[in-house]
This record gives sequence, C-alpha cells and structure tokens, in this order.
Amino acid sequence: MQLSEIYEPVQPDLAKVEEMMRSVSEADLGWLPGQLASDLRASGRVAELLTHSLGGSGKRIRPALTLLAGKFYHYDLDCLLPMATAIEILHTATLVHDDAIDSSPVRRGRPTINSRWDDDKAILLGDYLIAKSKELAATTQNLRVVTRLSQTLMTITSGELAQSFDAFNPVQTRQHYLHRLISKTASLLSLTTESGAILSRAPEKSVKILREYGYNLGIAFQIVDDIMDFIGTEQEMGKPVGTDLGEGTLTLPAMLLLERYPEDNPVRKAFQNQDRQQNIKLAIELVRNSSIIQECYTLASDYAARACRNLNQLPDNASRQSLINLADYVIERQR
Amino acid sequence: MQLSEIYEPVQPDLAKVEEMMRSVSEADLGWLPGQLASDLRASGRVAELLTHSLGGSGKRIRPALTLLAGKFYHYDLDCLLPMATAIEILHTATLVHDDAIDSSPVRRGRPTINSRWDDDKAILLGDYLIAKSKELAATTQNLRVVTRLSQTLMTITSGELAQSFDAFNPVQTRQHYLHRLISKTASLLSLTTESGAILSRAPEKSVKILREYGYNLGIAFQIVDDIMDFIGTEQEMGKPVGTDLGEGTLTLPAMLLLERYPEDNPVRKAFQNQDRQQNIKLAIELVRNSSIIQECYTLASDYAARACRNLNQLPDNASRQSLINLADYVIERQR
Repeated sequence: MQLSEIYEPVQPDLAKVEEMMRSVSEADLGWLPGQLASDLRASGRVAELLTHSLGGSGKRIRPALTLLAGKFYHYDLDCLLPMATAIEILHTATLVHDDAIDSSPVRRGRPTINSRWDDDKAILLGDYLIAKSKELAATTQNLRVVTRLSQTLMTITSGELAQSFDAFNPVQTRQHYLHRLISKTASLLSLTTESGAILSRAPEKSVKILREYGYNLGIAFQIVDDIMDFIGTEQEMGKPVGTDLGEGTLTLPAMLLLERYPEDNPVRKAFQNQDRQQNIKLAIELVRNSSIIQECYTLASDYAARACRNLNQLPDNASRQSLINLADYVIERQR
Repeated sequence: MQLSEIYEPVQPDLAKVEEMMRSVSEADLGWLPGQLASDLRASGRVAELLTHSLGGSGKRIRPALTLLAGKFYHYDLDCLLPMATAIEILHTATLVHDDAIDSSPVRRGRPTINSRWDDDKAILLGDYLIAKSKELAATTQNLRVVTRLSQTLMTITSGELAQSFDAFNPVQTRQHYLHRLISKTASLLSLTTESGAILSRAPEKSVKILREYGYNLGIAFQIVDDIMDFIGTEQEMGKPVGTDLGEGTLTLPAMLLLERYPEDNPVRKAFQNQDRQQNIKLAIELVRNSSIIQECYTLASDYAARACRNLNQLPDNASRQSLINLADYVIERQR
C-alpha cells in the first residue's frame, strides 16, 4: 500500500502542515524589533536556511500520525495543525544537528546544512527550529503537550548522548541498543500519537493506547531503518549504506553478527580502526548472506504487531485502519 | 557596590535558583522509560556534563533580574523561581553552543564542554538544556512567558546567524552592530525583567517599563563586554583579550577604529588574514591609546540611563534601588 492511501483520511490537512512549514520558511520575524526584523528578512539568508531544511521530501510520517490520532474524538484542527507541524519541525531540528555531529554530506539525496553551509550554521539553525517548534506548540494553549514536547527533546538528546559516549564500543547489550532506539526514535513517534489524542480530548485510556501505538511503531520503524543501512541501496536511502558502522554506531544487525562470530569479527576490527572501509564492507556482506536480516525483521514485526494490539478498543473509523496499514507499511517499505 | 549588596532583596531566593540548577545537574530522568532512566543515571555521564556546564561561577545576573522584577506586585516564588532558573539554563545552553561554534577552549576560567569533551557532546548538551529550560518554564503554567521564552531563543539565534554570516566582514554599519547586540544579549535580559513582571501580575504599563529596563540594560551590558575584550585582562575575563577580533566579530571599538583609519587599518588586515595575530595586537594597542574606549563607555552609560528612566513610575522599594544600582554596576564593573 502507498503512503498516500494510508494518509487518505488526513490528506487535505497534511497539505496544510506543508503550508505551515512553508510559512516558517518565510521567516516570520514579527517578534523582533522592527528594523532588525526587516534587515534579517531582507537579507534572506536565514530564510534560505529554513527553506533548505524544511522543504525536503520527507515522508511526513510524524505529522500524519498526529492528525490520524486526532481523528477518534474531537478533531480540532486549530490545535492539531500547529502541534503536527511543531513535531515535524522538532524532528527536522534534530536531523540538522545530527548531520553536523556525523559530518554527513547528504540527507534524502540533498546536501546537508553543514555541508552546503557549515557546522556553525547547522547548530544555530537547529536551535532556531527547536525554538520555533516550541512556539508553535504553545499556540495549542495546552500546557500538557508543551511540556511533553520539551521532555521528548530531553529524551532524544539523552539517547544521542548515550550513543555518542558509546561510539565505537563493540561491547553493548541488546538492552542498550533498545534503549538508544527508544530515546532516539520511539519517544518522538510516541509523542505524535499521544499529543493527537490529548488535543482531541481523548479519554485517558485512549491516550495510553495511542501513545503505546506510537512507541511500538517507533521501535519497529527504527529497527527497519537499521536493517536498511545494511541492505538498502544508496538511491533508496539518499545516503550511502554502512553509514551507522562508519559512525561507530552499533545497531541490531551488527550486534547479531558480533554474537555469531565473537572472534575475528569485521565489526570489532572496523571499530578498532583496522582497515575500516574494508571491514565495514565485509560486515555488510556477511550480514546480507546470513539469517540476521530475517531475525531483525521478525523482531520489528513483533513490535509492529504490539503497536496494533489495542487499537480495536478505539472507535472504528478510517483512521484506525490507516494506523493498522501504517504498521504494515513500516515493515514492508523498500524491503 | 558589590553584586551581593545589589542582590540583597532576593539573595535567599537566588540561593534557591542555585539549588534548582543543582537538581537539574542530578539529571532528573523520571520521564524516561524506567530501565533507560536508571541506565543513564547510573552511567553518570550525562550528569557530569550537566554539572560541568551549570555549576560554573556566573554572576547569575539573569535570575537576579527576574526575581527583582517580580518584587513590585505579587511576588509568587512558585512561578518566579522556575522561570528565573529556566532563563539561566537557556543562557547556559547558548554559551555551550557558542563555545562549540567558536572552538573556545575556556569560559570563565574553566575548560568548555567542546574542549573537555567534544563538539558533539556540546551540541547535544545544549539541546538538552534548551529542552530543560522550556520544561521548567512550562511549570509556571503561564503560556505567555513560555511563548516569550521560545521567541527569545529565535531572536538570539537569528542574531547569531547574522553574526556568523557577517564574520570577517569589515564593512558593517553601527546599526548592524546594534542589531546583533540586541538579538544576542538585550533580548534575553529584556525577557528576564518582562517575565518577572508578568509572573507577578504587574499591570501592562509596568510590564513595559520593566521590559525596557532589561532591554536597555542588555545593550549597555554588551557594549561594556565588547569594551572588555579590548581593555580587560585574561584573569578578569577568564578568556584571552581580542577574542572577538580573532573570531571575525566586528564590535563597536573595532568599528570606531575602522572609521578613524579607513586606510591601512589593522582590523581590516586581520579580517583579510594578513598577519592576523600581529594585527589584532596592533588594533588593541591603537584602541587602548585612543579616545575610542571613552566614546564606547559614553554610549553604554547612555543606555544604562535610558534603562532607569521610567523606573520611578514603579512602586518604591528596595528592588527598585537594586535595579538602579545594577545599571551603575554594569558600567563600572572591572573598569
């Protein structure tokens, strides 16, 4: 199934999210002292950074989830729209900072901010986007989602810090991996559906069901992402394969490979900087030709199933079916 | 006058700000999934970064301003305390990112996060602190100050982006300089007093007076800071003199020097990377032996006076006198 079919119940409103993101790109600098705002606007340099970072061709899975989760009770677009946009902008901010941290040249087939401009611009633009995201979230007038947005960014950065401290460490448990992935990805996906539920005044039981949907979907999503780094093509991913290993990030497939070949393992050698490129290639080869990928997919499917487990307790509507289909899509995409 | 005397009306509550900052350092990870929180807490690595960044010996001028500005109407510490702490944490976050951008080795006599750890940790820690700041601000339950906090970070980063785009450009107007300084410094100082006023339920007229106090004080403060980069000692500042010129930042003293010697100017040469160190030294020498410093101080005093202009319309109390004394202090410090 195509994403456009899955998004069908919220498609017109997703277009409004794009519109809201575009209006951010046009740098609404109204809160600045008059002359200063017009100086910056005229220079167009901040706007160029914003357009470049927000204009990409993402799947917009996060705003879609917020809107879909908002469809079960009081679908209040005045709140859901800024929140969906705020989450996508926060997501973009973390990508801009990640790319600077990883010195990534390309994201989704386009040059990153750090490569087209420099790290300084990437750091500052990311900060700007974080602030913009919070400002938008506050327009919902709902302090609970405002607080959850801040906490989620704290969770994400805690996970990224853990990853940064663990870089090139080949001795990590699966628990470790799972925790990193929960912080980095599941926390934000969990917020998308949780906030959709809160802002549509869902009963607490439904808030919990939708939050857990996002949480488990996020885990499945990231496991598949980590698989793709081994079996994808550069064209599909918009970046080269083996990027994670190159950055010293131990993901599930690499971890399983280490378990299978505890001695003389190319992952360990790559992390110890012995013929890094050669050993990364070898590790990818070995993973591809083993049952590891299948094993990873089984785990991802498990989480996708867990995501949908309690959805039948929600009102039956088109959005519920979309959430179920999205869980399938996350596993099946580009497989 | 010593800062401790000026802070007298809020001294016990400033100690509570320190306490709240310490509790952040202890990394309250309660919102994380259980095991994950205890993993991160146990590792102590995130906490170490937090302690290092928040534990410094800052003047705490920002939280003091929020508390002092809150003293004129309903002094509600339940709101003022988290807001004062939130602003100081946001300030710290911007310093952590600035130091990474400028590759600064030392801040206030201590190694920076980027030098003791690395740029990656500095970027992530800064993001964490921004998020924490917003979370704290939300505990005031006041959406107006939450929104203003986000907008202020947008203003700060816009100013920093302008500065980054303008680096090593010797052709800039005074207007330019003033705008950068308003974005970078005055906006946050203006927020300290504005939010103190809002959270103590001051009438709008008083909110405006206090906001403008912070705004003008901020301009005076930054001009003096820029002067210090020419006439201070490394010991006073906790970093070497001439740092701004080394980073390609054109401040007022350098600008006035360019106006005086349009031809054959060491600032221009330094920016064009001709014998940079030698020319920076020469520029500092020339500025010190001219009336430029006096001229800059006159402008700073002007803004300090402007800051106090309307304070007499506020209720007469010890805090009002402290605000007046603080404006003097900002001009007189380490002169």
